[in-house]
Amino acid sequence: MKKGLLESLRSYSESDFYPFHMPGHKRKMEKDGFGEICRYDITEIDGFDNLHNPQSILKEAEERAAELYCSEETYYLINGSTSGILSAVSAVAGRARGLIIARNCHRAVYHAAFLNHMELHYVYPEIINEYDIAGSVSAEDLECVIKGILNKAGAESQRAGELIAGAVITSPTYDGISSDIRKIANLLHEYGIPLIVDQAHGAHFGMHPAYPENAVKQGADYVIHSVHKTLPAPTQTALLHRNGALTDSEVLKKYLRIYQSSSPSYVLMAGIDEAVRIAKEEGCQRLEHLLRLRADFVKKIKKCRCIRICPLTEPGKLIVSVKGTSMEGNSMTGQMLYDILRNQYHLQMEMASANYVTAILSMMDEEEGMNRLADALIQIDKGIIEKKEQDKVSDFVLRPVRSLHLWEAYLAPFTEIELDQADGKTAAEFINLYPPGIPILVPGEMFDEGMIKMIQLYLKDGYTVQGIFEHRVRVVESP
Amino acid sequence: MKKGLLESLRSYSESDFYPFHMPGHKRKMEKDGFGEICRYDITEIDGFDNLHNPQSILKEAEERAAELYCSEETYYLINGSTSGILSAVSAVAGRARGLIIARNCHRAVYHAAFLNHMELHYVYPEIINEYDIAGSVSAEDLECVIKGILNKAGAESQRAGELIAGAVITSPTYDGISSDIRKIANLLHEYGIPLIVDQAHGAHFGMHPAYPENAVKQGADYVIHSVHKTLPAPTQTALLHRNGALTDSEVLKKYLRIYQSSSPSYVLMAGIDEAVRIAKEEGCQRLEHLLRLRADFVKKIKKCRCIRICPLTEPGKLIVSVKGTSMEGNSMTGQMLYDILRNQYHLQMEMASANYVTAILSMMDEEEGMNRLADALIQIDKGIIEKKEQDKVSDFVLRPVRSLHLWEAYLAPFTEIELDQADGKTAAEFINLYPPGIPILVPGEMFDEGMIKMIQLYLKDGYTVQGIFEHRVRVVESP
Repeated sequence: MKKGLLESLRSYSESDFYPFHMPGHKRKMEKDGFGEICRYDITEIDGFDNLHNPQSILKEAEERAAELYCSEETYYLINGSTSGILSAVSAVAGRARGLIIARNCHRAVYHAAFLNHMELHYVYPEIINEYDIAGSVSAEDLECVIKGILNKAGAESQRAGELIAGAVITSPTYDGISSDIRKIANLLHEYGIPLIVDQAHGAHFGMHPAYPENAVKQGADYVIHSVHKTLPAPTQTALLHRNGALTDSEVLKKYLRIYQSSSPSYVLMAGIDEAVRIAKEEGCQRLEHLLRLRADFVKKIKKCRCIRICPLTEPGKLIVSVKGTSMEGNSMTGQMLYDILRNQYHLQMEMASANYVTAILSMMDEEEGMNRLADALIQIDKGIIEKKEQDKVSDFVLRPVRSLHLWEAYLAPFTEIELDQADGKTAAEFINLYPPGIPILVPGEMFDEGMIKMIQLYLKDGYTVQGIFEHRVRVVESP
Repeated sequence: MKKGLLESLRSYSESDFYPFHMPGHKRKMEKDGFGEICRYDITEIDGFDNLHNPQSILKEAEERAAELYCSEETYYLINGSTSGILSAVSAVAGRARGLIIARNCHRAVYHAAFLNHMELHYVYPEIINEYDIAGSVSAEDLECVIKGILNKAGAESQRAGELIAGAVITSPTYDGISSDIRKIANLLHEYGIPLIVDQAHGAHFGMHPAYPENAVKQGADYVIHSVHKTLPAPTQTALLHRNGALTDSEVLKKYLRIYQSSSPSYVLMAGIDEAVRIAKEEGCQRLEHLLRLRADFVKKIKKCRCIRICPLTEPGKLIVSVKGTSMEGNSMTGQMLYDILRNQYHLQMEMASANYVTAILSMMDEEEGMNRLADALIQIDKGIIEKKEQDKVSDFVLRPVRSLHLWEAYLAPFTEIELDQADGKTAAEFINLYPPGIPILVPGEMFDEGMIKMIQLYLKDGYTVQGIFEHRVRVVESP
């Protein structure tokens, strides 16, 4: 069997080769607590290939990843899923000007559309009201959008590929909800449109029967997997898979070279290879173990009167809902639960939303953590009560009107005004909660009363709202 | 004194916080040899700020870096100098359509011009014939280019800023040759044009009187420093400095968010902070030590009859020249020297060029390595003799004619043809040696006989020429 990347780096670090090359730490940082990082950190010296034109050791590593996901071609990403999204969208941008995207896509998708001056068409995910989360995107809604574009252009369906460069869907979502990728891919392919699936949160899919299939196998053309999110890989690492006749390998490679450092980190790349190895060798049994941990956890939580776990997500996500509850006379929010878990129990959640917190579970989780979380929630649950639910406007029910194209608005001169004065003005900056980084408002879209009210609510409840500057927002200057 | 980033990560890793968040390794990879990397590898949890909107711990870290280089503003880059170059060029792209660049800029500069559809105007570095390396760029040549652009547009000099968005200079070059940045900055500022300096190889400048001043202090508007190249930081890390009234902080930040992962690695960021700390506390004395090592080395090498060290570089570079020598009846090449050093002496050089090899020295180098290199070179020198020098065409003497704009040619349909059939055809792909990644031919430029001969020579001598596919090249399809 061939050596993995990490093993090759280890052998090299133990050799007597003296480095008259980058990096400048010369692999001698042991005493400063950065030992292993620097020991394995080299540049493209002989025998270690080149990420931007892989021929040997990195080519083999990428092939191992391709094999794991049954992909025709797989590329290592060392600038995160971000760089995979930028590259995949740019790769289809030459096909046509339009791009269909699920409205709940990550900012990076909007950035890619901006860079390529593409015209955005939205498909909206369903809303799961019981938990206030965005659900799946349906093939039917997607077809409506395609037909709308064709109608507007007065074009026959065989011309769809001339108008629409591609479609981008996030599946699973940050909350763990998957769409029917197979059905969506089949539909799009009938129209000659390539499908890009941002599966950043589903790198573990397809490794165990209880989890959804991975999007490559389901027929998507470009698929992006963040290996650091749910597999044991270092932050900022990801994979991009390319498959099928609607894709272009050469154009894709062009953009991967552009959007990624010409000095890629071997430590990050070795981390990807390690994660792929662990997933291949132990993925199924580790996920089986996680399933058992989760089942035990959910069983315990059934004791709670108010706190609920959303049953609709893939098993790797825990959506802990406090919707319709109150504590000491105040409505309970996700942020409140998040703060209590962090401050009183030292349990660090991934994210707080209006009515829930999200925990990310991976194949590396242990019983101890799950037990601590269950005990904490049972304890917290005792202090909260059900309350008559107020109507709350959910993000994706709001469908702001667009007055300018994204690329026009994001490059336009802007002024800063008070948020409460913004009604009817065109946004010049993205506004989003972080995490997850899904835009509430996109440059070119107009503020309206509902939107302003919702942002004010988020600010009041202590969420991190990006794109707001001390209660002021950036709007496109009137000509 | 405030805690450094690494120290904060260490404290957190020793706490009892349980991670229900990314990354998926859950900081539990000790046994797999990836211990420290994962121990310090977190995501944007409370208390650890957000690189894309820094308010606390990362803001302070960036301020420490700004202080070291006396910069108004400094940004951490975790996608290498590449992302700094893309962001700085994109930030000026809104000012005008033209971009003046030194012809020996890194590919990333060309990529940035491509993304922004900018029209390139070249300024050529002088050629140092004695060593076949590119020298500095002069303010006089730059002014000629500016005047040429103005003349062609029939415009007065006060309109220069409407025609020229900025100028990009690499200083020092990959070979360690610096340009007079102060003079160039002054000239450009008279015309209202911002200066971007790719100082990737000069992150150690300004820390010791024997080294050149850093470009921020010399008046450049945007400066990019690869901290991993000459400071003790992990690969893929860099800094971007912004200064002065010709720059735009808001536009710059927009592009930094676009071109960099939304999941930046805390390990890489802590590595930058550590490098800044070491440079600040020990930089001067470590560079002093390196100077002594280098002086001893150069003294020893004086024994050599044929091998010469180029005295024109900054002290951190060793250009070991074998120009005009032969071994066993064959002309000696840089690649031959590189291979001997590697295979027989286990000394890994940074790069081989036609007539020399390059070694990168950093403040972490030790006497043992320098002695091994000196001894090896003295030994090798005994086996080579001087020879009557042949004329060789140097890269930058060739000035290919452009028939298409970069963005037209790089997006155009192409065909692959034999290299020897390419005379008069327009390149559809970059052609460059790697390292250093400086294009010999840029998409849109035409092949000519001299160019073809030179590429054939590189291939014959065993260099890595990117953009050649088994002796075939990509040319723009004739309409």
